[in-house]
Amino acid sequence: MIIVGELINASRKPIAAAIEAQDAEAIKKIAREQHEAGSDYIDVNAGTFVGKEADYLKWLVKNVQEVVDGPCCIDSPDPRAIESGLAVHKGTPMINSISLEQERFDALLPVVAGTDLKIVALCMSDEGMPETAEDRVAIADKLINALVQKDVKPENIFIDPLVQPVSAKNTFGFEFLGAVERIKNEYEGVHVICGMSNISFGLPLRKLLNRNFAVMAVARGLDAIIMDPLDKEMMGGLIVAETLMGRDDYCANYLKAYRSKKFE
Amino acid sequence: MIIVGELINASRKPIAAAIEAQDAEAIKKIAREQHEAGSDYIDVNAGTFVGKEADYLKWLVKNVQEVVDGPCCIDSPDPRAIESGLAVHKGTPMINSISLEQERFDALLPVVAGTDLKIVALCMSDEGMPETAEDRVAIADKLINALVQKDVKPENIFIDPLVQPVSAKNTFGFEFLGAVERIKNEYEGVHVICGMSNISFGLPLRKLLNRNFAVMAVARGLDAIIMDPLDKEMMGGLIVAETLMGRDDYCANYLKAYRSKKFE
Repeated sequence: MIIVGELINASRKPIAAAIEAQDAEAIKKIAREQHEAGSDYIDVNAGTFVGKEADYLKWLVKNVQEVVDGPCCIDSPDPRAIESGLAVHKGTPMINSISLEQERFDALLPVVAGTDLKIVALCMSDEGMPETAEDRVAIADKLINALVQKDVKPENIFIDPLVQPVSAKNTFGFEFLGAVERIKNEYEGVHVICGMSNISFGLPLRKLLNRNFAVMAVARGLDAIIMDPLDKEMMGGLIVAETLMGRDDYCANYLKAYRSKKFE
Repeated sequence: MIIVGELINASRKPIAAAIEAQDAEAIKKIAREQHEAGSDYIDVNAGTFVGKEADYLKWLVKNVQEVVDGPCCIDSPDPRAIESGLAVHKGTPMINSISLEQERFDALLPVVAGTDLKIVALCMSDEGMPETAEDRVAIADKLINALVQKDVKPENIFIDPLVQPVSAKNTFGFEFLGAVERIKNEYEGVHVICGMSNISFGLPLRKLLNRNFAVMAVARGLDAIIMDPLDKEMMGGLIVAETLMGRDDYCANYLKAYRSKKFE
């Protein structure tokens, strides 16, 4: 499982405050915690700071990589902001995200074309959010083909089929899972990624729903996730899910996690 | 979800002791508890008492139904023992179980032919336990066809694809889930049932694995389960799983369970 730690996001109040105060220690602390908890990428987002996003992204990338020996996920729809983060990034980051919305697509494609960047591609078009598995796969197909034509390797593409709230329509969970399975089966090498929390929008005990939906999604082939890596129960659920699906030879990872008390 | 409460089984020491001492109150207590916890059927099994199984099954059915206004699941491979339980049973019980093993099949088929009994049918043949989804579906196909030809309605058939330990072979979970999905998709009206606990054989924290595997199985269409209904976390997981899969209009069952503190 490829884990993108989502906590350094300016939409969260303590992060916005830390960015505004240029409190590097606060950012480093949460970067280090997420890395130690098992994040493969540290997401950095300064999207709420209009006009300053590019500078703040650069500052976030620098500070995160001062304490984390690993890549960031540079989270913005704005190519200028992304380039600003890229300029100081060491190693190969993930870009979050392109979509099939024409303006966003045209802006981001040149940034990733011919590079080895990892790219999150949202199943979203100018016609809005897809509701069925079929609609999602149709958008994914266009995104994958367009990216591959621009020399992006399939294994660098992370399709996000977009989770929608089961409280809004009771087919939303089912259709999402169908899309995960089809994309994994039909596009060799391509990853499927998502954030889980929309599934539980409007309902109580959201983490309980998110965690169980993640387990179902792993069972369909989900192999990357954008999440709070400090949520021990979710992290434990992912380990369990991969073991149950045979993605853990000799259950070695499960046994190791058990011995290091990750399920407590 | 159709829940079969599994606790009244002579392979469990306190139950064996209660049967031996003819302690009706002990049996009634555990029957009542399972019913109140949401069991649709109360399994009764006296299989360890060779020569006395038929008498003990009759005694168990009578005592369970003195306190539970609902059916039993009469659990034996022996048609004589089953008939003994049937003779005193009120309403329509479930029979657990027929299989494709020739001797068992020939013995049980006449018991259920042309009746309205619910029948658990194990994906087991004289060639042993199937390992792949395909092998399971092949056995299920033979069982379903044979039962339907003997005037058993599809909706009275509960196929058990048989869970095997993921610690023995890492494809076992995956293959089981594939069988659940295919049987539900290909045989209209037929139910799929199982007990979960074999998945975690040989591993620590078995309930954690069992619960998450159940969530995955519900996501593939599992609609009946043989389990300990006093396991609140497993019961909660099943409610969550059905809600996520859209089998809970307006999330009403989830919200009701939340309000009655079933997730605590």
